[in-house]
Amino acid sequence: MNRGIFISIEGSDGSGKSTQLSYIREYFQNNGMDAVFTREPGGTAIGEKIRAMILDPENEEMCPLTEAMLYAASRAQHVRQLIIPTLESGRHVVCDRFVDSSIAYQGYGRELGDCVAVINGFAVDRCMPDYTFFLDLDPAVGRGRIKSADFDRLEKEKMTFHQRVYDGYVKLIGEDSGRFIRIDASKSVEEVRREIYAHLDRIFSGERRDG
Amino acid sequence: MNRGIFISIEGSDGSGKSTQLSYIREYFQNNGMDAVFTREPGGTAIGEKIRAMILDPENEEMCPLTEAMLYAASRAQHVRQLIIPTLESGRHVVCDRFVDSSIAYQGYGRELGDCVAVINGFAVDRCMPDYTFFLDLDPAVGRGRIKSADFDRLEKEKMTFHQRVYDGYVKLIGEDSGRFIRIDASKSVEEVRREIYAHLDRIFSGERRDG
Repeated sequence: MNRGIFISIEGSDGSGKSTQLSYIREYFQNNGMDAVFTREPGGTAIGEKIRAMILDPENEEMCPLTEAMLYAASRAQHVRQLIIPTLESGRHVVCDRFVDSSIAYQGYGRELGDCVAVINGFAVDRCMPDYTFFLDLDPAVGRGRIKSADFDRLEKEKMTFHQRVYDGYVKLIGEDSGRFIRIDASKSVEEVRREIYAHLDRIFSGERRDG
Repeated sequence: MNRGIFISIEGSDGSGKSTQLSYIREYFQNNGMDAVFTREPGGTAIGEKIRAMILDPENEEMCPLTEAMLYAASRAQHVRQLIIPTLESGRHVVCDRFVDSSIAYQGYGRELGDCVAVINGFAVDRCMPDYTFFLDLDPAVGRGRIKSADFDRLEKEKMTFHQRVYDGYVKLIGEDSGRFIRIDASKSVEEVRREIYAHLDRIFSGERRDG
């Protein structure tokens, strides 16, 4: 039995990731192909509890490194309990955000640096995606899609943060260009969908012929 | 203002750590000295939530690495939110278990290896205890204090685990003998208390004269 294929989807806020994920789900259904759709943080019962802790506004005093370690803890569980067993059973896995998000958001965005990659290296333990779709959108455009009001100080801080996150993704792509599939997310939803579908056709060509 | 002194207490199960901690608390009270007593995992609101997650029997499918990362996340928060600010305000900190527990229990006991020290190195970020009391007790004696029934397979596994934890502590002491104060915990509760008090007298000699 062949090992399943592991795909992750990455993108800045406002890049249309959720919409495209629902199209990817349709792609698998329309082609009669089986895949497990999961997300990070979360994906397992323990991971979802960790996710709730990270997102709980009551925990606003949480330090950036604590947050990064909770993401990594959730990922360690996700990889071992769900992703590896699923792939080994021959089923595909599609994950909404994976380790690249941690490195881009915590390592670059929050400026925690290399420790994020080191810690997540232990969490992932060589179980990296075969393909990673990066929905590429200038963070200024992404922010504009969300809200176009005048930027106050906090908004400007957020803008600088999102620029660092974006630059982080660009560096990651440069280091692992064979894995990343960079999609121009400034195009229309339909154009983006068609481009992703073309890549999925290529990735799963053998399977679709057999199916 | 002088920085406070940071003391941690370590020991295997059954070594009498809780009893001696209550005596250490009395020591500070009797000498009119101020110290913050805290514990790991826990010590902060976020840390206590993480502790509850680790200890919740519902989470029995938790992987050893997930557990180790949750301990480290709790520690990162504890160090930054409580321990460093307390020490910098001139108050002392006494902590029931600290980073040595993670390395001994997860690194050696659960055989996760060096990654535990690496991850915790980021969590601690040079904020190491000035003194660490290690209540030294042969793990076979410690287990015997808890339960002396015939050992079944699970008990034997536990015994091997506790032997690895103990061996881990011994290695840590060898690597940092200036920090550790090894106390023979096979002696009577009263003898152990007197020995710890003698060390505290020495550590806080200046302060007690002033007080």
